Amino acid sequence: MPIMKKIYKAHILFTKEKDHFEVLENGYVAVGADGRVIAVSARLESLECKDAEVIDFGNKLLIPAMNDMHVHAPQVHNQGVAMDLELLPWLENYTFPEESKYADVHYAERMYRRFLHTQWLFGTMRSVVFGTIHTESTRLLMKLYQEAGMGALVGKVAMNRNCPDALCEDVEAAVRGNEELIAEFNRPDALVRPIITPRFVPSCTPELLKACGELANKYQLPVQSHLSENVSEIEWVAQLEKESTSYGDAYNRYGLFGQTPTIMAHCVWTHGSELELMKRNGVMVAHCPTSNFNLSSGIAPVRSFLDEGLRVGLGSDISGGHDLNMFRMLVYAIQVSKMHYQLDHGKAFLTLPEVFWIATKSAGSFFGKVGSFEPGYDFDALVIDDDILHPEEYSLLHRLERYIYLGDDRQIVHRFCRGQEVPEPASMEDSGKRIS
Amino acid sequence: MPIMKKIYKAHILFTKEKDHFEVLENGYVAVGADGRVIAVSARLESLECKDAEVIDFGNKLLIPAMNDMHVHAPQVHNQGVAMDLELLPWLENYTFPEESKYADVHYAERMYRRFLHTQWLFGTMRSVVFGTIHTESTRLLMKLYQEAGMGALVGKVAMNRNCPDALCEDVEAAVRGNEELIAEFNRPDALVRPIITPRFVPSCTPELLKACGELANKYQLPVQSHLSENVSEIEWVAQLEKESTSYGDAYNRYGLFGQTPTIMAHCVWTHGSELELMKRNGVMVAHCPTSNFNLSSGIAPVRSFLDEGLRVGLGSDISGGHDLNMFRMLVYAIQVSKMHYQLDHGKAFLTLPEVFWIATKSAGSFFGKVGSFEPGYDFDALVIDDDILHPEEYSLLHRLERYIYLGDDRQIVHRFCRGQEVPEPASMEDSGKRIS
Repeated sequence: MPIMKKIYKAHILFTKEKDHFEVLENGYVAVGADGRVIAVSARLESLECKDAEVIDFGNKLLIPAMNDMHVHAPQVHNQGVAMDLELLPWLENYTFPEESKYADVHYAERMYRRFLHTQWLFGTMRSVVFGTIHTESTRLLMKLYQEAGMGALVGKVAMNRNCPDALCEDVEAAVRGNEELIAEFNRPDALVRPIITPRFVPSCTPELLKACGELANKYQLPVQSHLSENVSEIEWVAQLEKESTSYGDAYNRYGLFGQTPTIMAHCVWTHGSELELMKRNGVMVAHCPTSNFNLSSGIAPVRSFLDEGLRVGLGSDISGGHDLNMFRMLVYAIQVSKMHYQLDHGKAFLTLPEVFWIATKSAGSFFGKVGSFEPGYDFDALVIDDDILHPEEYSLLHRLERYIYLGDDRQIVHRFCRGQEVPEPASMEDSGKRIS
Repeated sequence: MPIMKKIYKAHILFTKEKDHFEVLENGYVAVGADGRVIAVSARLESLECKDAEVIDFGNKLLIPAMNDMHVHAPQVHNQGVAMDLELLPWLENYTFPEESKYADVHYAERMYRRFLHTQWLFGTMRSVVFGTIHTESTRLLMKLYQEAGMGALVGKVAMNRNCPDALCEDVEAAVRGNEELIAEFNRPDALVRPIITPRFVPSCTPELLKACGELANKYQLPVQSHLSENVSEIEWVAQLEKESTSYGDAYNRYGLFGQTPTIMAHCVWTHGSELELMKRNGVMVAHCPTSNFNLSSGIAPVRSFLDEGLRVGLGSDISGGHDLNMFRMLVYAIQVSKMHYQLDHGKAFLTLPEVFWIATKSAGSFFGKVGSFEPGYDFDALVIDDDILHPEEYSLLHRLERYIYLGDDRQIVHRFCRGQEVPEPASMEDSGKRIS
């Protein structure tokens, strides 16, 4: 029997299955010295660990922490800026110029600390992150995650065509930079690891895509990129990669589509053979609902993904998305599915347990056993003090729903990642509580 | 020359015209003893009032306060609850049972204070409000608004068919109750006044609609109701009101469609002769974007409304909407317009100045001269301390945009309604800061 470490008592809610919540009123979760859940139960006695320390969170809620499955850390400065621009002027005037600044590690540090602090505020304990092409700044971001005790798969971005000169890196340099980071960070079971990150097909030559696939295979590293976000992007890819049968197949031909664990952002227009390939290869969708609304590129058919058995998680996608609060992403995911339902009444919209399951257990599976309180899962958890939301007047399920719809960072009073409480990360700025 | 009272110095932003912001860096606004703006200027000298007290808000932003043009105050308890239900079970199990509780004035006081406090937190200084059928509870709500110093048009709801017995009131009682409130509150230029409020055509018999129209005409009172939110509702109205050429015409035939100032919530499916009638009669649309997303009933074509010259404001519509923060309604309004743009690229999505203008000057016109800082306008204003959002790194326009997208109640440090600073309203509950 593993050494008992801590027992937490609270109202415990999580989604073992996708269609309903497990609700343990005044329940207990026992967490081992390795940070993994040993057992969860409504009764202390049934945990069989009389010697463990019991920490009582009283009337608070204890839920799995949030996972942000698609986010551009270097876009933190553009969050909530110029949101009413069209995509192209926005990329040209905001996205690319901002990323170029990350050649300066000092600037990167200031912004990346800001970014991490905001993720911490909102209880996001695991992320799948795009950095920039800059190896030093990406190393720094990984160090900051390590320092903070938060989990992340961090990508040095690969791009060498259709982008400003300052953001082009040749294949050899891209491989070298990646291998440096891999040598430093690729430890089994580490909370912070590299992820191979071609930006998207149009910004990578076949040589670069090939090199990315080889890196993923050689070091058995996960892969992230963008897929089928909007129609003109798909047409562009079809022109660039004439031998591919779909956008997804273009990645697949370079070993970047499930040969190692792969997550693709958006997939708004994924269907047919592309969807079949994702299913067969176990590729996860990072659904970014605010992006669907802000960029007007389409509405992801998430109900169909679930029906097909595709793996799905949620991403904030800042700064296409504007919000790093993943709880609000749950709200938006339901709303996006309602927009889809409006177009096709054959596909029911998502329910709260479904989006919660997507955001926690389903997303978390990309990191291992994360996102649930079942035995063996990493204890990634948040303690919510919803006293301000009149908890005495509501059921536990409605308390959670109201927190998701109405709450913010003020109600998150403890954050755990793999069993360790995560304290507020240090900032380079004087003010304690920065939003972004 | 009117007596100078106060001069406020800050970075001033407002929308005199719908397509751009007036931006006065370190500007000044002079407010008279009557609470109205005397002048606004980038230079103190040009205000010609050397004797007035100058209050310097330093680096903060000064903007018009928010107006919530459609909100069900008695639904505050249902805010953020059961948001993934279909409309009918939700009405039956949540909306109607909740409203029935307002027969109890003590319950009403507890909830209405909670509601007002939340509006205050988010800087909503004027509202167009649905109460319930209960005269005493509606009187109480009006008293609470008076006490708080916040402006509101408050409706005792009229309904006598297709609703639970507890929420039916016969025509005579409805008229009597309304006349009591009218006698007590209908003062010219009062901040809090009654508004005639048939719930919607299906819940009012022709006799009740006729009585409502007569009340509006006799006392020259404004009118609010719901219009063309979803397709089956429109079909229902067509069956009930066979002589009407449209849903809007049904109201019109009873003198409830612009004969006195009228505002109609939703108008998702308004077009053709209904739209023409609204335009001709100056009926305002209360556009409720979160409702559009949460209820899946359709996407209001706001760009078309603007093109046609229709009057438009924004409403939170809780608890169909889930958020009383009107700034988030601006974000949602842009997103709704982007959904519409996706279906019809002929209609450009809304820009930030446009939604800001809709939410302030356009909406405010329903209350008189409200929502701008032009001379003669009521000084309804918010002071925003966005220090947490790194103001030093952004232009004033981007600072405002970031506040709208990322901020919350914590950054609103002063609230003014018609020239008076509005202090935090008293609560029946012990905790100071309640979200809802």
